[in-house]
Amino acid sequence: MITKISHIGIAVKNLEESIELYRRMGLECEAIEEVPSQKVKVAFIPVGDVRIELLAASSPDSPIAKYIEKRGEGIQHLALAVDDLPKELAKAEDIGLRLIDKTPRPGAHGASIAFLHPKSTHGVLLELCKERDHNEE
Amino acid sequence: MITKISHIGIAVKNLEESIELYRRMGLECEAIEEVPSQKVKVAFIPVGDVRIELLAASSPDSPIAKYIEKRGEGIQHLALAVDDLPKELAKAEDIGLRLIDKTPRPGAHGASIAFLHPKSTHGVLLELCKERDHNEE
Repeated sequence: MITKISHIGIAVKNLEESIELYRRMGLECEAIEEVPSQKVKVAFIPVGDVRIELLAASSPDSPIAKYIEKRGEGIQHLALAVDDLPKELAKAEDIGLRLIDKTPRPGAHGASIAFLHPKSTHGVLLELCKERDHNEE
Repeated sequence: MITKISHIGIAVKNLEESIELYRRMGLECEAIEEVPSQKVKVAFIPVGDVRIELLAASSPDSPIAKYIEKRGEGIQHLALAVDDLPKELAKAEDIGLRLIDKTPRPGAHGASIAFLHPKSTHGVLLELCKERDHNEE
């Protein structure tokens, strides 16, 4: 079951400049994390119970570098929080969606994640995301 | 003050097909509204206290038709809910952001809205949105 929006992923060229933009708008960055498997540095900006995640490439062959080369900076993905990721992945496959990740993998912020291919979701890179339980923090 | 994420606006070619995609994923469309001033039909899909808004052009010269022509279907804008829209617009101008709407205008769902230009926000079309008070509904 999809329970809420987890976060909105925004591809940026320069993490510090973008953090500063949101800070001036009144939104504070809570933490920065490097995710080596994705070659990405992530800044977390909570807004209500949702997060803006600013994503900057930490290497020229990062998926984020490739995204920006093709489409420029901007909103890259939408992450839906789910209660049971393997079950939701099986359901997504059942209804004909194309899975980028057939099985959950570790994401930023202690989450388990899996992406659905935008070709099967009308152009939206959707992430399904089992967030870390708050009582585990 | 920015209080929460209001909605994520997604440009789609065919409203019914996209509604059906999210419905199969377990997310129900709550209402459809036409916004003639924007030449757009909007489908509202609540997810927690945020909404996905599917945006389809209702005329070939709609901003959404132009967006899809240029970039294809996908996430088009991010709307931040604010408590005081004129104040937040003044603040945005003060910190050097470029306003598409200098003054609030009526949006879908009874809201007052104004857009900030993506050239000044690292590629993100940001909407500031004063949502209709729930006790006015």
